Parts: sequence; structure tokens; C-alpha cells
Amino acid sequence: MKVFIVYWHPEPQSFNHAMFSKAHQTFSEMGAEVKTSDLYALQFNPVSSRENFQTVKDPAYFKVQLEEMYATEQQGFVAEIEVEMQKLAWCDLMVWQFPLWWFGLPAVFFKGWVDRVFAMGRAYGGGKIYDKGVFRGKRALLSLTTGGSEAAFQPDGFNGDITAVLRPIQRGMLQFVGFDVLEPQIVYGPVRMTKEQREGELEKYAERLKHIQNEMPIDVGRY
Amino acid sequence: MKVFIVYWHPEPQSFNHAMFSKAHQTFSEMGAEVKTSDLYALQFNPVSSRENFQTVKDPAYFKVQLEEMYATEQQGFVAEIEVEMQKLAWCDLMVWQFPLWWFGLPAVFFKGWVDRVFAMGRAYGGGKIYDKGVFRGKRALLSLTTGGSEAAFQPDGFNGDITAVLRPIQRGMLQFVGFDVLEPQIVYGPVRMTKEQREGELEKYAERLKHIQNEMPIDVGRY
Repeated sequence: MKVFIVYWHPEPQSFNHAMFSKAHQTFSEMGAEVKTSDLYALQFNPVSSRENFQTVKDPAYFKVQLEEMYATEQQGFVAEIEVEMQKLAWCDLMVWQFPLWWFGLPAVFFKGWVDRVFAMGRAYGGGKIYDKGVFRGKRALLSLTTGGSEAAFQPDGFNGDITAVLRPIQRGMLQFVGFDVLEPQIVYGPVRMTKEQREGELEKYAERLKHIQNEMPIDVGRY
Repeated sequence: MKVFIVYWHPEPQSFNHAMFSKAHQTFSEMGAEVKTSDLYALQFNPVSSRENFQTVKDPAYFKVQLEEMYATEQQGFVAEIEVEMQKLAWCDLMVWQFPLWWFGLPAVFFKGWVDRVFAMGRAYGGGKIYDKGVFRGKRALLSLTTGGSEAAFQPDGFNGDITAVLRPIQRGMLQFVGFDVLEPQIVYGPVRMTKEQREGELEKYAERLKHIQNEMPIDVGRY
């Protein structure tokens, strides 16, 4: 199994970092090949711009998708992006570890990473989306923490159904480029847990990962 | 009427910029007071970090919400953030002009702007959310462009219902902090339009804005 773990949190001592480390350790002990992108340590630049490219198709007007298509043809992505694309193409299983901020990905990880790495030509385009996606056959797992409680993210809770909250990511990004999606690993409100409860969550995650190859993809629904 | 327009697109000659300029011009001609944040021109930093704050509550462990609460008490936000918060608090109507990227806000504008400016203490917290939100009484308008066609964003289209696609923004961000939400202004696929069709969209937008004070908020649904 080839596992690619992408992670971001602004505090290296965070519980999110502990989840990232636990996954890395567990997969390694299982004998899987593991590659990671710690976007905090990398100081990954989230701003999509001409700095994505070594090539220039149209110097007078910057159209992101046009430049992406051209860079795909000419191998024109900068190294920072190219290395991420290669990890994406290499893996069987991709794990995203992040805190849910404003019902979505934090700006850096991932929104900026997705904006720059999921490039037209390399990740989608020409009808290659959803069931015909470039990365079909690969699997993806969201592993996230929330500020709100589990009750707040029920269909009748004040934030509403977590499956719908995650749909832009699971449907709009992952399935869009062809990934099958596994049940998300969600730790609700670790900030309000005891140290022992957080340890319990880490162990529960490790136990799950040991058998993740046998898991079936879930239906995340449509918009 | 006090209008605050926030805008980002990576190409200053873009149709998004033309929509931004048209709104600015139209509101000014109507006699409204207008403030803007051109996040591209500002080179707004989307990365939420200790650089959000002049104050430090806990130097050993960076917990964003804790630092936000403390900065709210101590007036400790850096000027880059403080000025945005003041425009947010000042306006009656906030307009966000952006291209829809990966079913959401581009990383810089807005995700980074929201991550940093919608701070606990100043924008929400202590039960002040949704109908009890800090900014209740204010109205918000999304004005966006898509790559996909209008047909792709119908409930039976391949991307699904645009109202659900926009829910993380309209429900999860804007209504969360108390804004009433107006019908979004959506231009589908301007890249495939003729110059005349794009001009028509700009004029249609200007006509709408002239009467926007009479519009009623919409129901954006729940997750």
C-alpha cells in the first residue's frame, strides 16, 4: 500500500499533529510505503498565481486553467507543485489531516494546496471528472477535528449534518478528480477532552488504519 | 447605505474585476458610501498564524480561538486584520466578488480572509451565532463566476444544485455570524461568452444593484 498523508495545523504540538504522527507511524509499522506533505513545515504557499508555472502561455492575461493546460503539455509546473502532483499520482490511499475551519478546509491546507495542485490537465479536464476521473481506483480519507460537538453536527443540530458539511470536499474535490471516499475519521471537540480521551482517539484511529485496506467506499451523496 | 465590497481574482483584467468595478461605480452613483478590500492589490496574507496578533496569551501553545478571544479583550489584532474587522462592523451590505474554485472560495479570497477576520470574540462566540449573530441586521451578497455551465449546477446537473454548493459560504460563514443573505449574483461560464454577452451581464448586475435596498433575504436552507 502506498499512502500519501497531507497535513496542516498552525501549532506543531496540536492534537492534529498527533493524529498525523499516529497515522504515519501506524502505516509504517504495517509495512506500507508512506509519503507526507506537512504543509506547515513546508510553509506551503497557498496563493495560486503565475508562480505556479515555469511556462507562460499568455503573458498578457493570466487565465489559470489555460496556463495549467499548457504547463501539463510542457511539463511547466514549478517544483513545489510538481512534487505534490507526483505524490498524488503515486499513492493508492490519500489521507488529509486538518482542523475544520468555517465548515471547510483552512485556507492554506488545503484550500491553497487544492487550488494549486489539482490543476486542469493533470487532475481533471476533457471530460475526466467524477466516475471518469483521472485518479479513479485510488481512495481518500478525511481525518479532521471540529470545534463544535458531535450533537451540533447532526441533521437537527445547530450546524447541521456533517456529511453535508463535508460534501464540498468529499464530492466537490475528491470524487470530482476520481477518488473513492472512505468514511471520514472525525474527532469532535478535542479541545474539551481530557488527555486520556485524546489518547483514546489516537488509539481508535490506529486500530482502524490497520484494517483500512478492507474498507469499502461510502456514498457521500450529491449536492 | 454603507457598502463594503471584498474582491479577489488573480488577473486584474478579469471579468471578476469588471464586476467589482461595476458594483463600486454603481453604488457610488447611487450616493452610497463604499469601502472596498481588493485582496489581490493588498496582497492579503491568507495564512492564519501568530502574525494575526500583537498580543500573546499563551506563548507555549498556539490556540487560534484563545488568542482571538484575548486579542478581542486587549485590542490586540494587527492593523491588517483590524482594518478589515472595522469595515465589516461598519457596513450595512457586504458584497463578496470572487470566482468559484473547487466548489468554494479561492484560498486567498476568501478562505484566508475569513479564517483571519471572522475571529472568535469579534465575529462570534458566547452563543452569538446564527439568529443571535454579532452582525444581525446586516445583509450580504455573493457575486461570483463559475467555470461550469448553468446546467451543470442544477439539482440534476453533474455538479449538483448551486444552492447546496454555496451553503458552506452562505450558511456556514455568513449566516453563522448573523448576516441576512440576498440571492447570489451568478455569472455562469463568462469565459465562453462573447464580449457583448459579458457587457450584458455587467449591465444586468448594475440594474439589480440600483434596487437592492428593496430586496428581501433568501432562505439558503440548512445542511
